[in-house]
Amino acid sequence: MILLDGKKLSKKILEEVKQGVLGVAQKPRLAVVVVGKDPVVAKFIEQKKKAAESVGIEVRIYPFEEKVTTNELRKRLAEIVHEKKNTGVIVQLPLPAHVNSQYILNAVTPGKDADMLSSRALGNFVTGKSAIFPPVVGAARALFEEYGIDYKNKYIAVVGAGNLVGKPMALWLLNEKTTFSVVRSSTKNPEEFLRRADVIISGIGKPKFITADMVKEGAVIIDAGTSESAGKIAGDVDFDSVSPKASFITPIPGGVGPVTVAVLLKNLVMLTKLKNV
Amino acid sequence: MILLDGKKLSKKILEEVKQGVLGVAQKPRLAVVVVGKDPVVAKFIEQKKKAAESVGIEVRIYPFEEKVTTNELRKRLAEIVHEKKNTGVIVQLPLPAHVNSQYILNAVTPGKDADMLSSRALGNFVTGKSAIFPPVVGAARALFEEYGIDYKNKYIAVVGAGNLVGKPMALWLLNEKTTFSVVRSSTKNPEEFLRRADVIISGIGKPKFITADMVKEGAVIIDAGTSESAGKIAGDVDFDSVSPKASFITPIPGGVGPVTVAVLLKNLVMLTKLKNV
Repeated sequence: MILLDGKKLSKKILEEVKQGVLGVAQKPRLAVVVVGKDPVVAKFIEQKKKAAESVGIEVRIYPFEEKVTTNELRKRLAEIVHEKKNTGVIVQLPLPAHVNSQYILNAVTPGKDADMLSSRALGNFVTGKSAIFPPVVGAARALFEEYGIDYKNKYIAVVGAGNLVGKPMALWLLNEKTTFSVVRSSTKNPEEFLRRADVIISGIGKPKFITADMVKEGAVIIDAGTSESAGKIAGDVDFDSVSPKASFITPIPGGVGPVTVAVLLKNLVMLTKLKNV
Repeated sequence: MILLDGKKLSKKILEEVKQGVLGVAQKPRLAVVVVGKDPVVAKFIEQKKKAAESVGIEVRIYPFEEKVTTNELRKRLAEIVHEKKNTGVIVQLPLPAHVNSQYILNAVTPGKDADMLSSRALGNFVTGKSAIFPPVVGAARALFEEYGIDYKNKYIAVVGAGNLVGKPMALWLLNEKTTFSVVRSSTKNPEEFLRRADVIISGIGKPKFITADMVKEGAVIIDAGTSESAGKIAGDVDFDSVSPKASFITPIPGGVGPVTVAVLLKNLVMLTKLKNV
């Protein structure tokens, strides 16, 4: 079993990002829109900020109160997107239940959408017209590349179909020459798919959802799940039981997470560069 | 085995479309951009034209020579889209190999994109922000609804991942609560997926690709494949051998095709209505 060392890979990508920052005329700045005060969310933002600042990218946090309305937030977000100094704008998810999330996300123009969560960025991605990848997809790609894992002629099971992991992964796999399945919470027999999969990419957000009996000997396991379990960030995979069967597996922490952050920043620099062409 | 009668369903939808046409302030007009002179393509256009005119929708064909450049075509298409009388604009596919198809398709604005092939229309669809469905998806939905077929809690195999069938189907299934797999030409063992599928939706464009031994007893078979075989339009399914095993199956001709045309026209009327709100 080989551990997919996301921390190491993220450092490598961040080193490239650092060089990229030096090469663009405008200094990249990441605007982060944050609604409410969730401590887990605050931790994610802190990670992004730290990584960004380590490569010379400024981060500007725009905090909003939990009770902000969809209309207020959309209006303010449009201004934040319009601000020239912000070369990328991300909206930290989840937004409060009373906010229309996609309507908010759609206020980020494709040229500043480093997270690729707007309809337009996703449409460009689906039709092969995007210069960047959704961060979590870019992370999976980078891990496969770094470790020489051939995923193209394999059978891939995507676990979960959420906006942050499963959906962008499936959109990506649609455009690659892969055979894949999407299984989700409502799937009655997920093990029937997982047991046959050469590669499992999971983002269902259920701690220990994937156990050893559901995994084929020699499978590649990418755990992009994030949920909170007893105050700690947990993945979807029961690492202790699954890892002995896997050929490659991501740990949590130190797996997909840090690579995703590095790819987000890589996207930001790419968008800044394209804007300044 | 119950035959999914697309001809009958298309008539029902066209009747609704006819009523819809009477209800909109502006008379809908479908602009059809056609490059080259393929006789099979000409036949498809003829079918659309006939259906449209039967419900009071005007069709205007814009023919281009095979040798048109991407830039010329994009420029002319922008004018066609801009023309107020055209309330919907479709580009007949395939375009010649030297033309950048997606760049052309992206010249159709979402408000006139009845075929939903542009990046923006697809992005809206992926994020649940579209008022209409890609025609072939709308056709599958309408067939399921008409015949009371529950597809949501079933395992669906999508065969092929092309822009016209497999891709929009997969985008749709991602947003529905379904478990699905995408198998394609490069899949080594498509039968392993198909034999377990409750529903097969095929658009791989290979005559008799799906044979009886690949299908589970009682499966629902939606054949949206179109290829040319000995001068006739053929589907993907070996109808004679598969139909005895199926619970429901679409014939060709008279299956998905006519319903897809009816949904395209339904989309056109919806877009015309939204524009005139």
